[in-house]
Amino acid sequence: MRRSYARNPPLAPLQNQGRPGPQAHRAESHLPSAPSVPKATAVSTFPARGDKKQVEEGLGFTPKFDADGLMPAMAIDATTKEPLMLAYMNAESLQLTLEKGEAVYWSRSRQEIWHKGATSGHVQKIQEIRTDCDQDAIVLYVEQIGAGACHTGRSGCFYRKIDTATGEMSFIQDGKAFDPESVYGKA
Amino acid sequence: MRRSYARNPPLAPLQNQGRPGPQAHRAESHLPSAPSVPKATAVSTFPARGDKKQVEEGLGFTPKFDADGLMPAMAIDATTKEPLMLAYMNAESLQLTLEKGEAVYWSRSRQEIWHKGATSGHVQKIQEIRTDCDQDAIVLYVEQIGAGACHTGRSGCFYRKIDTATGEMSFIQDGKAFDPESVYGKA
Repeated sequence: MRRSYARNPPLAPLQNQGRPGPQAHRAESHLPSAPSVPKATAVSTFPARGDKKQVEEGLGFTPKFDADGLMPAMAIDATTKEPLMLAYMNAESLQLTLEKGEAVYWSRSRQEIWHKGATSGHVQKIQEIRTDCDQDAIVLYVEQIGAGACHTGRSGCFYRKIDTATGEMSFIQDGKAFDPESVYGKA
Repeated sequence: MRRSYARNPPLAPLQNQGRPGPQAHRAESHLPSAPSVPKATAVSTFPARGDKKQVEEGLGFTPKFDADGLMPAMAIDATTKEPLMLAYMNAESLQLTLEKGEAVYWSRSRQEIWHKGATSGHVQKIQEIRTDCDQDAIVLYVEQIGAGACHTGRSGCFYRKIDTATGEMSFIQDGKAFDPESVYGKA
């Protein structure tokens, strides 16, 4: 079955929550509170989940998001098999990833859709997307465009290993793949 | 510096939270509420985090757990580089992982420490542990003992890929590595 991930019907706009902004009218304070909807939670166009057997053994993609509307997504270099970064997706960013064929995440710090590489040019072209047995995590095999995935200037974010005996870390690669200031500007 | 992850001082016991159990005394209800501590949150013996530069460029391991006291951990087969599973760790399970040299997770469904393979024998021997730039995610390179990591009987949990054009999935490997019923019993 061909299923379009185009927005039909369009996704509902993300709802504001939490403290009212400076323009909030005090006169409205008697109104019943809107339901608490995390900002990351968009209306999902993915099908409803079936039972455990359907989720684990079936071929329908019915992703499960956590209480904050997110699931973890691990990007892996499709050529080297090196883990590049672990980030999060909400339903909208996962749908955009499928539509664009490029990794689109949800930025927890900025609370917004994050099309990886939109400013740096370091987009991640999707080669393959996998999900796990209970469909609450994603692995992206990507072609990393540009010198690297990590904002520190390295090819990937997992550049330090931990010595289990001492708890100290060491770098697994020397040097940086690119100059982060020239790409992202000064921190 | 050699740092022991032995429990000295011992980890504080996990605190109960939420609704009082059947033995709760109503007479105690006037006492001030205990602070809300998620069950996954144990007292961490990891050092306090420094500033952004120290976290990203330093060699001190100062892991960051989320509001539920958890961080995601991706286990990767050290030989094949195939992703095996994505699970979560709290501070105690991460410390136990470092101490034992085997993967110990926090089970969100059972709300308890989960020494992977303790019942199935399918333990994961740690070959290398890495953390990412902001130290809020873990990659474990493991030797997977036994036939597989996934409770469905497969070598790993990421056994289905998603067709971005159709949204349908297909299996990336045929058959199962072991019979889950013979290892875990009937579901």
